[in-house]
Amino acid sequence: MKHGVAHVALTPCGELVSVEERCAGLPSTGGARNHQEKTLARPIITLTTDYGTGDHLVGVMKGVILSINPDVNIVDITHHVLAHDILDGAVTIAQAYNYFPPKTIHLVVVDPGVGTPRRPILVASDQHYFVAPDNGVLSGVYDQTEALYVWNITSEHYFRNPVSSTFHGRDIFAPVAAWLSKSWQTAAFGEAIEDFVRFSIPKPKVDGNTFKGIVLKVDAFGNLMTNLRIADFPALVVPDAKFTIRAGKAEIKKLLPTFASGTAGEPFAIVGSSGYLELSVNKTSASRALGIGRGAEVSILVES
Amino acid sequence: MKHGVAHVALTPCGELVSVEERCAGLPSTGGARNHQEKTLARPIITLTTDYGTGDHLVGVMKGVILSINPDVNIVDITHHVLAHDILDGAVTIAQAYNYFPPKTIHLVVVDPGVGTPRRPILVASDQHYFVAPDNGVLSGVYDQTEALYVWNITSEHYFRNPVSSTFHGRDIFAPVAAWLSKSWQTAAFGEAIEDFVRFSIPKPKVDGNTFKGIVLKVDAFGNLMTNLRIADFPALVVPDAKFTIRAGKAEIKKLLPTFASGTAGEPFAIVGSSGYLELSVNKTSASRALGIGRGAEVSILVES
Amino acid sequence: MKHGVAHVALTPCGELVSVEERCAGLPSTGGARNHQEKTLARPIITLTTDYGTGDHLVGVMKGVILSINPDVNIVDITHHVLAHDILDGAVTIAQAYNYFPPKTIHLVVVDPGVGTPRRPILVASDQHYFVAPDNGVLSGVYDQTEALYVWNITSEHYFRNPVSSTFHGRDIFAPVAAWLSKSWQTAAFGEAIEDFVRFSIPKPKVDGNTFKGIVLKVDAFGNLMTNLRIADFPALVVPDAKFTIRAGKAEIKKLLPTFASGTAGEPFAIVGSSGYLELSVNKTSASRALGIGRGAEVSILVES
Repeated sequence: MKHGVAHVALTPCGELVSVEERCAGLPSTGGARNHQEKTLARPIITLTTDYGTGDHLVGVMKGVILSINPDVNIVDITHHVLAHDILDGAVTIAQAYNYFPPKTIHLVVVDPGVGTPRRPILVASDQHYFVAPDNGVLSGVYDQTEALYVWNITSEHYFRNPVSSTFHGRDIFAPVAAWLSKSWQTAAFGEAIEDFVRFSIPKPKVDGNTFKGIVLKVDAFGNLMTNLRIADFPALVVPDAKFTIRAGKAEIKKLLPTFASGTAGEPFAIVGSSGYLELSVNKTSASRALGIGRGAEVSILVES
Repeated sequence: MKHGVAHVALTPCGELVSVEERCAGLPSTGGARNHQEKTLARPIITLTTDYGTGDHLVGVMKGVILSINPDVNIVDITHHVLAHDILDGAVTIAQAYNYFPPKTIHLVVVDPGVGTPRRPILVASDQHYFVAPDNGVLSGVYDQTEALYVWNITSEHYFRNPVSSTFHGRDIFAPVAAWLSKSWQTAAFGEAIEDFVRFSIPKPKVDGNTFKGIVLKVDAFGNLMTNLRIADFPALVVPDAKFTIRAGKAEIKKLLPTFASGTAGEPFAIVGSSGYLELSVNKTSASRALGIGRGAEVSILVES
Repeated sequence: MKHGVAHVALTPCGELVSVEERCAGLPSTGGARNHQEKTLARPIITLTTDYGTGDHLVGVMKGVILSINPDVNIVDITHHVLAHDILDGAVTIAQAYNYFPPKTIHLVVVDPGVGTPRRPILVASDQHYFVAPDNGVLSGVYDQTEALYVWNITSEHYFRNPVSSTFHGRDIFAPVAAWLSKSWQTAAFGEAIEDFVRFSIPKPKVDGNTFKGIVLKVDAFGNLMTNLRIADFPALVVPDAKFTIRAGKAEIKKLLPTFASGTAGEPFAIVGSSGYLELSVNKTSASRALGIGRGAEVSILVES
């Protein structure tokens, strides 16, 4: 899932640069330089929030960003993170960010503590930037990242003034992301910290022969995405594997290669696009068919 | 909430120009000129409609805009204005437009009278442009604007041909906004008018010691945004203020600084990000908890 | 509904070019050349899917596209095609694509057969490109197109690697669209085919004096869009036309020119913006009022 393109390093002022960029002043790398110039000319800021799309909130954030940097390409990931649900936000951004180009800035605002002393943070991972409240919503990002730099955002001259106590998406996060997309000087936004908040995305538990996981997400089709990585269950993908998955009222003994190979009404397991086990029913909502949703328990018994 | 950046003036042909732009031909203001060129090279058109996002309507409007001017940056504010609800549209655009850069064109299509003789209008405020039906949907914009120029759009050569009687978003409003983003010649679209439709966003009423307002909007979290401006109730924000807010089944005596300071299940008042009083319950929908929604009455009794 | 702008032809390598472009090297057409360069500098990719907007799927597709070609202008048509519903997808893209500029690439992913041997295809119509599964979802496009070129996408070096069996939107369709927006060499993606899947969008049937159609779509306002083209019923639009439309519990004898001319609560017929008959109730959902939705039968008896 990792991009293999760029070798990156952090400058003293906190800017991620690729090796190509570092050498960009040299005539011999003119081609690479041109490519970089193109990318820099139109930085990407993605938005992941629980604001919904029913009112002016998301539009206001976009207006704030474009007022500071009209060259930004703003890309919605989703605004339908479950309200106040930091885990849901963490799962969402963790599954999406890595598909964007290096140097993308990801704005992640799921922020039940808005206005309280919880810190706003700026994060540079191997290849991406993140602006978010320090409440753990980036935990799934941290899990996938080796090089990690985190700053507590304190430089108030980058904020809108006055700062409301209810809409930091508008007053702190959007402006910081927009200014970052102009300067790329992360260290200018505050001091480096190491005690940022990080929680564990729920991991499956072993109980005798049985592995117990949960449903992390229900997608638009009603597929149930679990926290069970197929890589941890090689026995499931061998031909004629014998196993029993229990979830809601279903007992599932089949892992199918495609949604369409499921017979009508029959629930089955499938390897989802992020490598996690999903429970599905062909052309129907598995969530409705099994009577379960997010947070429901899923157990696997492998009979080897 | 106002931008303080630009000094603007209207040219004889109806174009808003900043003082910087006017002087842009002079060598000494080269920097400003470059900035302006950048802005003009990628004009912004925002969309606020009640079309929803379930079918082809919004996509069609975007296609029409990009067919006329492929350089436009189209930004959705929302397409979930309540169906046919001009007040809801007025409240939405009034809260959003001012956060966008000067010269943004705002397309606002909440248009139950589509196809009838109601006029399409083009509006230039201090710093923004608006294209909308003349049904009052810009009333909240008018309330915030000193310099105001309004044209009845009659120049049919800017329309799609033939004009349907059911989709002026596609046939009139989108093409006019797109052509405006190329020419910036507002006066070319029709004659100036002064009898445009304007209604009052509902204002609170005084009844003895009691102020009676209404819920203007319910956000994605279930917070109830009222039409009571906190600036009109300074007594509420002093320490140990004594007041009673009644709304639905709730009696609220607390104004809290942040959502998170609310105790579980207890409704409280808070100053929303646009300066209006909101009713809220921490991590829960106040709309559900109080059993009320848009239009519900909210009263404040200040016991000074 | 057709654009009348460009004369197009297909080069040996499968690129659609306008006559203007072909001559673009000549000094005398410098203007046209500049226009083309502008267009090519920012290709458009539209997205039509049944993925919903509640999770990371759409964001991931956008990230994949921008990682390959950061210059693309990505435009959502809708992500709310009914789940797995190829007909609904076909109706949606058929009503939208023609409003976009020539050379737009339309990504259409309604793909219940993802991972099965159903082919991914690349289609060039008179003026647009399409990338989709070969399951008929482009049938409505084929119906509107004379020149039609279809390729089976087989060049795996354009895919993400490995290709999942559940998310070809990410692994095949998005990358192919993005690479196409850079090279415009359709023939490089696979071999031309002629046996692509095509189904008939349901057509009305004649039964004596009565024409029987169906509801193809319900829009955000609850208007019922039928498959009855008004052009096939000229008798309905003459003054004092006598006809009876039956649908659900309603018997409709009026064709009105605008939504607003309907009296409260009374259902009526109207010519929709795509030329199809729609059933509507002013300021109310006709779907709710008539108790019917998509797929419901609609009959017209013309009493001449």
